[in-house]
Amino acid sequence: MSIRILTGPEVAEHASRDSCWIIVHGKVYDVTDFLDEHPGGSKIILKYAGKDATEAYEPIHPPDAITTNLPPSKHLGAVDSSTVVKVVKEATAEEKHRLALMEARPPLDNVINLHDFENVAKLVLPEKAWAYYSSASDDEITIRENRMAYQRVWFRPRILRDVSTVDWSTTILGQKSSLPVYISATALGKLGHPDGELCLTRAAAKHGVIQMIATLASCSFDDIINAAAPGQTFFLQLYVNRDREITRKYVQHAEKRGVKGLFITVDAPQLGRREKDMRMKFVDDGAGAEVQKGQEVKKDQGVARAISSFIDPSLSWKDIPWFQSITKMPIILKGIGCAEDAVLAYEAGVQGIVLSNHGGRQLDTARSGIEVLIEVVKALRLRGYYPDPKFEIYVDGGVRRASDVLKAIALGATAVGVGRPFLYAFCAYGQEGVEKAIQIFRDEFEMNMRLLGARTIKDVVPEMVDASSLSSHFVMTPEDNLFHSTYQPLQLAKFRESKL
Amino acid sequence: MSIRILTGPEVAEHASRDSCWIIVHGKVYDVTDFLDEHPGGSKIILKYAGKDATEAYEPIHPPDAITTNLPPSKHLGAVDSSTVVKVVKEATAEEKHRLALMEARPPLDNVINLHDFENVAKLVLPEKAWAYYSSASDDEITIRENRMAYQRVWFRPRILRDVSTVDWSTTILGQKSSLPVYISATALGKLGHPDGELCLTRAAAKHGVIQMIATLASCSFDDIINAAAPGQTFFLQLYVNRDREITRKYVQHAEKRGVKGLFITVDAPQLGRREKDMRMKFVDDGAGAEVQKGQEVKKDQGVARAISSFIDPSLSWKDIPWFQSITKMPIILKGIGCAEDAVLAYEAGVQGIVLSNHGGRQLDTARSGIEVLIEVVKALRLRGYYPDPKFEIYVDGGVRRASDVLKAIALGATAVGVGRPFLYAFCAYGQEGVEKAIQIFRDEFEMNMRLLGARTIKDVVPEMVDASSLSSHFVMTPEDNLFHSTYQPLQLAKFRESKL
Amino acid sequence: MSIRILTGPEVAEHASRDSCWIIVHGKVYDVTDFLDEHPGGSKIILKYAGKDATEAYEPIHPPDAITTNLPPSKHLGAVDSSTVVKVVKEATAEEKHRLALMEARPPLDNVINLHDFENVAKLVLPEKAWAYYSSASDDEITIRENRMAYQRVWFRPRILRDVSTVDWSTTILGQKSSLPVYISATALGKLGHPDGELCLTRAAAKHGVIQMIATLASCSFDDIINAAAPGQTFFLQLYVNRDREITRKYVQHAEKRGVKGLFITVDAPQLGRREKDMRMKFVDDGAGAEVQKGQEVKKDQGVARAISSFIDPSLSWKDIPWFQSITKMPIILKGIGCAEDAVLAYEAGVQGIVLSNHGGRQLDTARSGIEVLIEVVKALRLRGYYPDPKFEIYVDGGVRRASDVLKAIALGATAVGVGRPFLYAFCAYGQEGVEKAIQIFRDEFEMNMRLLGARTIKDVVPEMVDASSLSSHFVMTPEDNLFHSTYQPLQLAKFRESKL
Amino acid sequence: MSIRILTGPEVAEHASRDSCWIIVHGKVYDVTDFLDEHPGGSKIILKYAGKDATEAYEPIHPPDAITTNLPPSKHLGAVDSSTVVKVVKEATAEEKHRLALMEARPPLDNVINLHDFENVAKLVLPEKAWAYYSSASDDEITIRENRMAYQRVWFRPRILRDVSTVDWSTTILGQKSSLPVYISATALGKLGHPDGELCLTRAAAKHGVIQMIATLASCSFDDIINAAAPGQTFFLQLYVNRDREITRKYVQHAEKRGVKGLFITVDAPQLGRREKDMRMKFVDDGAGAEVQKGQEVKKDQGVARAISSFIDPSLSWKDIPWFQSITKMPIILKGIGCAEDAVLAYEAGVQGIVLSNHGGRQLDTARSGIEVLIEVVKALRLRGYYPDPKFEIYVDGGVRRASDVLKAIALGATAVGVGRPFLYAFCAYGQEGVEKAIQIFRDEFEMNMRLLGARTIKDVVPEMVDASSLSSHFVMTPEDNLFHSTYQPLQLAKFRESKL
Repeated sequence: MSIRILTGPEVAEHASRDSCWIIVHGKVYDVTDFLDEHPGGSKIILKYAGKDATEAYEPIHPPDAITTNLPPSKHLGAVDSSTVVKVVKEATAEEKHRLALMEARPPLDNVINLHDFENVAKLVLPEKAWAYYSSASDDEITIRENRMAYQRVWFRPRILRDVSTVDWSTTILGQKSSLPVYISATALGKLGHPDGELCLTRAAAKHGVIQMIATLASCSFDDIINAAAPGQTFFLQLYVNRDREITRKYVQHAEKRGVKGLFITVDAPQLGRREKDMRMKFVDDGAGAEVQKGQEVKKDQGVARAISSFIDPSLSWKDIPWFQSITKMPIILKGIGCAEDAVLAYEAGVQGIVLSNHGGRQLDTARSGIEVLIEVVKALRLRGYYPDPKFEIYVDGGVRRASDVLKAIALGATAVGVGRPFLYAFCAYGQEGVEKAIQIFRDEFEMNMRLLGARTIKDVVPEMVDASSLSSHFVMTPEDNLFHSTYQPLQLAKFRESKL
Repeated sequence: MSIRILTGPEVAEHASRDSCWIIVHGKVYDVTDFLDEHPGGSKIILKYAGKDATEAYEPIHPPDAITTNLPPSKHLGAVDSSTVVKVVKEATAEEKHRLALMEARPPLDNVINLHDFENVAKLVLPEKAWAYYSSASDDEITIRENRMAYQRVWFRPRILRDVSTVDWSTTILGQKSSLPVYISATALGKLGHPDGELCLTRAAAKHGVIQMIATLASCSFDDIINAAAPGQTFFLQLYVNRDREITRKYVQHAEKRGVKGLFITVDAPQLGRREKDMRMKFVDDGAGAEVQKGQEVKKDQGVARAISSFIDPSLSWKDIPWFQSITKMPIILKGIGCAEDAVLAYEAGVQGIVLSNHGGRQLDTARSGIEVLIEVVKALRLRGYYPDPKFEIYVDGGVRRASDVLKAIALGATAVGVGRPFLYAFCAYGQEGVEKAIQIFRDEFEMNMRLLGARTIKDVVPEMVDASSLSSHFVMTPEDNLFHSTYQPLQLAKFRESKL
Repeated sequence: MSIRILTGPEVAEHASRDSCWIIVHGKVYDVTDFLDEHPGGSKIILKYAGKDATEAYEPIHPPDAITTNLPPSKHLGAVDSSTVVKVVKEATAEEKHRLALMEARPPLDNVINLHDFENVAKLVLPEKAWAYYSSASDDEITIRENRMAYQRVWFRPRILRDVSTVDWSTTILGQKSSLPVYISATALGKLGHPDGELCLTRAAAKHGVIQMIATLASCSFDDIINAAAPGQTFFLQLYVNRDREITRKYVQHAEKRGVKGLFITVDAPQLGRREKDMRMKFVDDGAGAEVQKGQEVKKDQGVARAISSFIDPSLSWKDIPWFQSITKMPIILKGIGCAEDAVLAYEAGVQGIVLSNHGGRQLDTARSGIEVLIEVVKALRLRGYYPDPKFEIYVDGGVRRASDVLKAIALGATAVGVGRPFLYAFCAYGQEGVEKAIQIFRDEFEMNMRLLGARTIKDVVPEMVDASSLSSHFVMTPEDNLFHSTYQPLQLAKFRESKL
Repeated sequence: MSIRILTGPEVAEHASRDSCWIIVHGKVYDVTDFLDEHPGGSKIILKYAGKDATEAYEPIHPPDAITTNLPPSKHLGAVDSSTVVKVVKEATAEEKHRLALMEARPPLDNVINLHDFENVAKLVLPEKAWAYYSSASDDEITIRENRMAYQRVWFRPRILRDVSTVDWSTTILGQKSSLPVYISATALGKLGHPDGELCLTRAAAKHGVIQMIATLASCSFDDIINAAAPGQTFFLQLYVNRDREITRKYVQHAEKRGVKGLFITVDAPQLGRREKDMRMKFVDDGAGAEVQKGQEVKKDQGVARAISSFIDPSLSWKDIPWFQSITKMPIILKGIGCAEDAVLAYEAGVQGIVLSNHGGRQLDTARSGIEVLIEVVKALRLRGYYPDPKFEIYVDGGVRRASDVLKAIALGATAVGVGRPFLYAFCAYGQEGVEKAIQIFRDEFEMNMRLLGARTIKDVVPEMVDASSLSSHFVMTPEDNLFHSTYQPLQLAKFRESKL
């Protein structure tokens, strides 16, 4: 089959709503009929009509989005790149400031905790990327509660145990993991780094950590798997498509390529309203992963809503046997928020659950995973379902310290998912950032396990924590402002100004 | 009957305490004898002696206040408007700033939650209007607690239920409502927008929402009803007059005009001391709705006290049968604050109760409606009074999100009253603002019900919330200031300033 | 007996440590031998050696302090005032600023709550007076807790009771009081106003409120009683002297002059360390009320310690019968802090107790009176000691609103003591300030009783409050600062700056 | 034995990695072979190659560190000091500012509480010293919780007890102590004051307080003991060395020199990650106490990690009998964090335990000693192990007031350890600072015991405190930021600006 070669000027003639061609990754596509179906709106496509749209397209679409969604007849051929006029973009003042900040980042040696990565990412990311990554739903109460909840669990350390050697490795779904932590799925990694999720893949390979691949990753599934080291373990996070055939193929392809666990997202029949993202009007610039025809998409709801229109809100317990029929991979339900559903999950015969509120991005004022863990373990235990080596419980959301992970393990979790911190690590420092993040976890695990008196993960038991305040949601009663306006706080002894 | 036509100069001759005429809406009135009875004081009337007082009169009086309170002999006739000297008011710097802010409002598209309306209203309203609307009693603890209380209720969401379609419509007192929310009564709407409460009426018509008409509305009851769409549903909020005959006529007129429910305010035998309002000395500029002769009114207590002197503090349970005798409308008691009174209300045979603290404007440190709901449902259930399709429970105060409404419904409420947010919506953007507010509720209901796993309002059950912290009133114990003065908080890794 | 008349120059010759005469209130005293006994130190006396010390002496000594402490032989006679050189003091910049603030005080009409008085006092008082009045012990946790505790008690209001008339008058120890509030003892009133405690006396007379006279008042006991209106009621606060004879005379004199209750302070065997006061080094300028010979006084502990050296730390339950033997006045123990001592007090046959922590000025982190009230009522009731018309319970500390008083009454108190707010009222506005403060209480009582559904004080019952959070001392657990440094709070819709 | 005398120029020739000599305290050492073993890294040594390193060496090494760690053959002899070129260091701007602050310190008379010392120390210490002393692990939650926990314990004071004389002296391990407080071990005192821990020794002698000598003191054990007053009591804090022989000698030497108690640190098998310290990169400047060969030390972990590599992480309950075999001193385990280990300690036959989290420097979110005390006393009592005159319980961490100490005693502690406050006292004011700190404790004990109604330490009983909130860990639930952005707080009455 010969490929037609087009020139820049030829393409440039098709720069209107009546005939709209664009160039992506050196190929030319006729998107005229697709304009009204684009989840991100037609406006952003028309901005690139007759031109090379690759740079705008790439970070927010899976590589195969365009080929999947356009019929072959609209794939017009390749373009002779020498004939395409390069659009020289003048960096904006904001962009220049961002690059200066990138230059001025703290040296990676100075990064000593996971918060440091988040802070660097916040300052060096384009505003829209930061808004997309950091946003959560409604008042963002749950995202913050995820962090706060860990601070309501306190340690009861044991002493005088020989902790010369401590070992924090474990197995997750039967797979070895050097940490009791897996890299949880986060979407659109190329918004934050040109290599996107591959930064995670490479660092995970080097350090024996398991990566969960996101349905909405910027890098295609195969690109990630192709970058794997021999024997590297992956899990797959799945948004279930309204068109089950697409889902079936995707799952079976993943199994064939060696993925070891299928994490079906069950807390996102519709994506949450994330106001930081909505305020960005991201959609104006176009976005459209996994486009489904015939789905009306609200054009003003941020990138999250735009890219998620294909997700099936009718997904229900009735679908679980079908999943069990199409794959042998262990199936895990990601996004359980109460004991009743944990029991149903166990009884449905899946291999595990993730107690999660989707990083605070879905139902606001849903409780944290660590809090839900307590009622879940209690309910399962009551029915004789726990412990069971065939059923694992994970928790995600809010973890920033190895001590958080140990608290979750003490309360009954097998491992903990960590998403944003690794994402921010590569936004700030690429693959090396992720490696450093893993190293920080290691250092913290070593210290905390020694100080807890636990030689191995199995030694981390419920008696090592006091979680009695975990389910108390303290909201301060408003106080008497006038009293506080008048009260004069105590002061320390004053230095002699005359001497200074 | 011929109407006497007066000229501007004729009126202008009567500009003293001895003979004081004023023009309102093109009519001339002799208010000489009324000066000392005016609840807002004589000073403000004398400011307009011999002149046109319409602009000052309008926002804070019902249109018929003057005709009701002055005997016919003091209605002197019409004025020939061409002969009246227009007073050209120079806009103050403050007023100019306010208009500039109005001009600079965020486009309505950028408003994505109800807080946005409040913030715009705060900045664009005249200071006195903002003070009147936003003020609450004493230390304003209850108004803030109303908001905080919802944050002590957490969700227990359910997953894997088919939520392709979700329906948040309901019925209130047998009337269809597109939302489980009604527009609660707020007073003096023209302070904030020239169309006053009509903004609510028109938006409610368009979106199938029920409006509760306030006794102290700036627009007259009939103006509102006349503006209704065919079949539009209204409730009436009632302040009971010392003169029961006035009340009887008012109620029966409302019933005749099709009002579907009578909400008798029972938490306001005297209006609260609202310090923001009192500090405005609003009364200096005159105020006087529903004036009652012979009632001494303190002249320094803000607009709220001035306009409420007619309210009968002797209202008691003994009056309920009388109300039941004069109307067939369902009777609802608005302002219940504890279980004991909810039981009495049920036993008195009324059709419903509103658990409310009057938006924090009456008894400060009274508890929030959502908190009281728990004890009320428990007490009614214990006596076999709940559930009962003939007795509905509503809650108001502090609602800003659809998720708040769903929490109230889960705990046993039929619907929720929302007052200030709709008021602020029309102060900021008129009728369109109210429509947008309703749309925001819809979007939030759709998302939250999907994420909760509830297809209809009936699916929203008690098990979906954890309200165990709701009745805990956490006031922080004062801390050791000196410790906090000395402690040096941790810092993040520093950027290299030399590179910036 | 003839009085010797001295001249200014004669006195001025005795201006050294070897012979030190001073003039106070027109009399000349030889204080040479007293220099080392002065609790405020000799330095401050020597500053006035040979001069008129009245102005410095007056605010911090009872008028008879000097005559009581110096033997008659050292009372040298009167001075011919025309011969005394007036010391013209140049006002300091600080003093000028203070006077300007005094001038700029808000008009009394604008004062609408008790906090306003405190704020004015804070700004217009000399720094040392403010420090002395406002200071409390150690970290000042208890003084603030006193205020916060009331905010942990919430109302359960009743509706539909005829509240046309409400009556908040009561009786205290059988004496009529127009408010369920008495003016509690505070010391050294002349530091804040030249008329000192007489401002309280005159306002109390006018409004039917009972004043408790302080042992350490700046005005002498007789000056206060002499200023009384016919039939005006007083209580007496008593610090028990190491020399019981002094105490006996003082108590019996008070009874003879018609005082109706003896409040013995039992929480001050030693005065607290009040750091604000200590930092003022007040003592440097001299202070010495009720001086006791032979008591070593630390010279650097503020005015509070200096003026209190006479108080007997050996006072014990064994002394109660003696008090009962010397007076027929009802005896009340002021400063009870736990149930055990309330029981002992009842069993000792006294007529009442004040649950108090001395306005936070004594033992820091002692609990608030309102909190202690709950355990006291419970313990007394258990033993059948409560209710008992012969035994009354009062509470003081932290009251700023009539609603606070009603909470205390609901929980079992007969009345509430209010100290600093009345003190600040006269510091800011003299007698009129105190009258306004009483008026504010009346307005608040009227409103709150109506809104609570209580016609009289007897209707204010335990069921009207929810005090279930009162004994919970919430101290916030320190949080993760780094998380808070990084988290970016949500923002409201932005105004268009270009339009402003 | 003759000592070889070297000259400055001779030493200066050995200034490279190939041959590296340094001068310390007038002696010359060949450290060429030691460069790679230095826990603080070779870089810092090479900075002083061929030069006098005394000033850098002294504050962070025990005096005998170099002689112990270098074989005698590397001790080259003495240097003729007149031949050594003095390095004149130019004071940095930071250093000059620090000296100015030192000059401007508040006079010691103005220091009235322990916080004042900390504040002065914070401002006058070199940045690295402050970082080392003040730092704690991870998010520094536990260090702050230590302070906050005391504020969750409230007093229940008793009245009318004769408190003319109060006595707060006690015995600790049978040794007299003028306070129920001992000086707890803190490391590297010379970082903060040239006399280091001797400031403590001298003040302790003068005031009858017991000092616990730290293994990592800057002053050598013998220097401290040699400075003791006759009969002065010491305890010894012990980090157990991997080489038990070193530990045996150290312990037996201490016993021989009269130490009265051996406090074995059991909560530090590895030192915590202290981020303030780590950010200082202290290690760059060299640090190396008690160096152990063959231990890999991470070079970027702050001074704490660098100086602690010798500590044995294998220490376990099995080692206790060995300690009991080598000494007759009472053995106390320092760093117990839960009831289970307290029971094991009792059963192991030791004489006491310190409930401690190492000043928050080890396991973050470990609970405070005062909180653990409650469960420990309960568990021991249940087993009949408490009270037992042969087994004492101490608490440390967060104490800043005598009232804190009294709370611990009421809850069952014999005495309380105070570390940083005494350290900061001598950093700020040398020995006199420590004396003043002790005096402040005395003043506070006198006042608090009187006000509590306790004549002696034995009178301080559990009923005197309300610790019911102690084990509640209140972390505030995140709130609705938008509400708080919009809400307008109440304001006080305004002053008239025109008058100012």
